[in-house]
Amino acid sequence: MTDWTDCLNFGISIAKQASEVVLLAFQQQKDVKLKSSPADLVTETDQQVEKILISAIRNKYPDHRFIGEESVAAGERLELTDSPTWIIDPIDGTVNFVHRFPFVAISIAFTVNKQTEFGVVYSCVEDKMFYAQRGKGAFVNGEPLYASGQEDVSRCVVVTEIGAERDDLSLSTMTSNIFRLLQLPVHGVRAMGTAAVDMCQVATGGADAYYHIGMHCWDIAASAIIVQEAGGVVMDTDGSDFDMMSRRVIAASSSAVANSIAHAIQAFPCRRDDEDPCRCVCGANGV
Amino acid sequence: MTDWTDCLNFGISIAKQASEVVLLAFQQQKDVKLKSSPADLVTETDQQVEKILISAIRNKYPDHRFIGEESVAAGERLELTDSPTWIIDPIDGTVNFVHRFPFVAISIAFTVNKQTEFGVVYSCVEDKMFYAQRGKGAFVNGEPLYASGQEDVSRCVVVTEIGAERDDLSLSTMTSNIFRLLQLPVHGVRAMGTAAVDMCQVATGGADAYYHIGMHCWDIAASAIIVQEAGGVVMDTDGSDFDMMSRRVIAASSSAVANSIAHAIQAFPCRRDDEDPCRCVCGANGV
Repeated sequence: MTDWTDCLNFGISIAKQASEVVLLAFQQQKDVKLKSSPADLVTETDQQVEKILISAIRNKYPDHRFIGEESVAAGERLELTDSPTWIIDPIDGTVNFVHRFPFVAISIAFTVNKQTEFGVVYSCVEDKMFYAQRGKGAFVNGEPLYASGQEDVSRCVVVTEIGAERDDLSLSTMTSNIFRLLQLPVHGVRAMGTAAVDMCQVATGGADAYYHIGMHCWDIAASAIIVQEAGGVVMDTDGSDFDMMSRRVIAASSSAVANSIAHAIQAFPCRRDDEDPCRCVCGANGV
Repeated sequence: MTDWTDCLNFGISIAKQASEVVLLAFQQQKDVKLKSSPADLVTETDQQVEKILISAIRNKYPDHRFIGEESVAAGERLELTDSPTWIIDPIDGTVNFVHRFPFVAISIAFTVNKQTEFGVVYSCVEDKMFYAQRGKGAFVNGEPLYASGQEDVSRCVVVTEIGAERDDLSLSTMTSNIFRLLQLPVHGVRAMGTAAVDMCQVATGGADAYYHIGMHCWDIAASAIIVQEAGGVVMDTDGSDFDMMSRRVIAASSSAVANSIAHAIQAFPCRRDDEDPCRCVCGANGV
């Protein structure tokens, strides 16, 4: 079995390096005028950061493949093969980034034979480096992470996001889901505006569950292994096995909690990430 | 006009001092068993921190009065008089505190002749000390704060909380409000689980608006002046002047945004804070 520790360490170091660009752009957004045309600015920094990451990785590992939010948005086919593959979200939490709401992450997952070997989520503004390697535990800034282990959904703090879909069906499904969870009841519902950082809260034990419908593989591939290595579970919102391409995820402190949430919530229809080359029009961070 | 700067500086110093107790208890909550009876633990730390704060203030300012969450819970009458009064929430974000979700604040407001002279919100885990004095601006860790100035609600990030009320009317009102705001649309909805810290996001410009129904005066008195001194506006959810006892608040980047939100959302009935001595059964942080 190949040891991918060097790759993980490289992933951590380039995430840290690329964060300088993210933080500089984040700070610059003090001029409200910039917010009136957020799309351009965001695309520019997103693309710049993704290029920095891919260029650095390609230089060191010329045979590796990539799935990147911006590359896919630019028309590249999204296909997860057996080759070593880096799955990259250069800025997870795009709306936060534009508004300077202080949770923005660089998310990097690495798969071989379609299995995730490690994940890195760097919450830049907080300076929290989350990472995990298969079979080797999960960490934040070097400290081990443990999911809460909570088994009773009525004692849970649940994190979620409405998502970028703003049609009435999606909105009513997502707000009804919150209503149903609160009726169970749960202790509370939180939303920090970035799928990757939200999900890492489950790994810290600070939240007991996270669910999301409509996000993409690059939003959650890295944090999924971080949750699993912290002792949590990850599954589809329909209760089946986790599939990073299905655009549906529950991350939880235990199977019992994940199943309770799967039972309580409903999903709206979403095309799979690996089905439709135009999927990129729906971002997962526009909550 | 009396200069209350010494009082403000004292408020900042005791918030910092009391945070040591909060942080110690926050870290200790790694044992999941503790979460199975959160109420006792929380009350214990809440009471301890409030006692530390009130005792320190009383020692220095023996003539000053107090409105404290725990004192009111213990049966003290809640009455805002013209005397110098410290309004204290020892732990804002109680559910976060129990779960170790990393946003927990000590909130201290100070009023004279029923007017707020200063407010201190210390987000302990983040180590962010927000404060503002009437006419002298708002700051976080010494850096000046400016609300975004955004005037178009459709470009806003909005923060809110469901609140502790879990009857069907309250829950459906709060989730319907989120649905209606997203239909306007707004850029996104966030919830960090503490009224005081949520509201300070408006002061930073990171969020453009915050609204809440059912919280108490000690949850928002301090952050209200912080938002105002950062250039934001604070009003009742019915569009009338802000009244810290009404248990309804909108904080926003501009009057235009505050009015748009007041127009979009509905409130459920809440007894005023200064009307009912049993109000303490409804906490504002149980989101």
